[in-house]
Amino acid sequence: MRRAHRIAAITKMLVEQPQRVYALGDFADIFGVSRSTLSEDLAIIRQAFGQLDLGLVETISGAIGGVRYFPDLTEAQIREEISKVCELLEEPQRILPGGFIFIDDVISSPFHLRNIGNIFATYFRSREPEYVVTVETAGIPVALKTASSLKIPLVIVRRQSRVAEGPVLTMRFLSGTARQIETMSLSRRALASKSRVLLIDDFMRAGGTLRGLTDLMGEFDCEVVGKGVFIETGWPKEKLVTDHLALVYLKEVDVENQKVLVQPADWV
Amino acid sequence: MRRAHRIAAITKMLVEQPQRVYALGDFADIFGVSRSTLSEDLAIIRQAFGQLDLGLVETISGAIGGVRYFPDLTEAQIREEISKVCELLEEPQRILPGGFIFIDDVISSPFHLRNIGNIFATYFRSREPEYVVTVETAGIPVALKTASSLKIPLVIVRRQSRVAEGPVLTMRFLSGTARQIETMSLSRRALASKSRVLLIDDFMRAGGTLRGLTDLMGEFDCEVVGKGVFIETGWPKEKLVTDHLALVYLKEVDVENQKVLVQPADWV
Repeated sequence: MRRAHRIAAITKMLVEQPQRVYALGDFADIFGVSRSTLSEDLAIIRQAFGQLDLGLVETISGAIGGVRYFPDLTEAQIREEISKVCELLEEPQRILPGGFIFIDDVISSPFHLRNIGNIFATYFRSREPEYVVTVETAGIPVALKTASSLKIPLVIVRRQSRVAEGPVLTMRFLSGTARQIETMSLSRRALASKSRVLLIDDFMRAGGTLRGLTDLMGEFDCEVVGKGVFIETGWPKEKLVTDHLALVYLKEVDVENQKVLVQPADWV
Repeated sequence: MRRAHRIAAITKMLVEQPQRVYALGDFADIFGVSRSTLSEDLAIIRQAFGQLDLGLVETISGAIGGVRYFPDLTEAQIREEISKVCELLEEPQRILPGGFIFIDDVISSPFHLRNIGNIFATYFRSREPEYVVTVETAGIPVALKTASSLKIPLVIVRRQSRVAEGPVLTMRFLSGTARQIETMSLSRRALASKSRVLLIDDFMRAGGTLRGLTDLMGEFDCEVVGKGVFIETGWPKEKLVTDHLALVYLKEVDVENQKVLVQPADWV
């Protein structure tokens, strides 16, 4: 295989499994070339990715030597992605009876999620989470994409416990908006204690769910190292959590004039 | 940018968005080279992928000319992936009280799902589904990965309807195993009528859920072009659906001797 062929193959392997560390020796076996030749190949890939902002290729020096890929986005790319999402969410036909808006297509579309997962991963990677935790149902796709970018497992907390899960820990919590008592439950086996967890959800009003998830993590003796929500509403003003990262703010749903106002979060 | 740099960048773009058609003109603009030079680049990528079984790079000829990537697996790769999953599921510590087995870590791990989604996509691509449809909760990650590989939207059917979804169609159905009446509901806006849909779920006993989903698709005037389940149990013998594709069979959970027996499906 010539250099150009090797580069195609190595790029494919790196991109397909973000964060996986490949040893130079693995590639040397596959392609039958020396490690110094491979180092040159990797330098070319790193240069090309750097020049076009295609993510980060990190080479690890030392006795073994290796390489891995991070699908990190630049600040400009994050701004562009979030602006596109705002436009999409402002489509007036999303308005539902009662002033709700229909977002299921956005939060379940592999196309839109690809970058939303990468945004959360870019932001939270340095906190070294070991699990992404979400609560069923709508937040699961966003959480899975985040977990994929970080190459860590996803844990799904249930609203109701099901018999096939084995022993579960169940907790009641107060929903922030409706002030109703709700239930969360999670299998005892789902999380190793003392883990560092990243909470991800699709939609936050008062933050009761994130508050409840945080308390549940305490019961598992796990540390919440970050909290991310895709959409945060402007109402109510008082939130039950403070140190969370929202991507967009849903400011207003004006049913009368069929207008939705969505803005990028302040940090964007 | 030299050829090797271009190949790194083009490979990254292709792999990251399976099924997306890139026009040669798009690449010509980015790299400032002629279409014939790009055709040579793409031939190299195609050769490298072909030689190492890294998926299919398809060039589209004609006036516009384009290229796209399919993350298809070979039969040998599918067999290997499914064998690994069987081994994983046979770990005796998965046995739960009541003879259930714990599978949440397998069906939520981005690492294992990556290839499970590609297996379903490889098998069902030719039926040209327009949506992947699943029912909450545990099947969502597998379904999302399948939808990503096929580059089509995911639609999640709810067990209970929530107020923020707008008008929903609700249906009762009889669960196959427990013979209980259960509920499914789906937002009226979630699916365009006359669509071709692929049903994906994580676990099938009698098949009552898949049967119910099929009936629900009929109410939306959609055609079910395929049904895939990750794990099918050997019991009960009588199934409520027949033309589905399972990846593995859970033959036996022997609580006494702490043994789980899982086999690849017959077609593998």
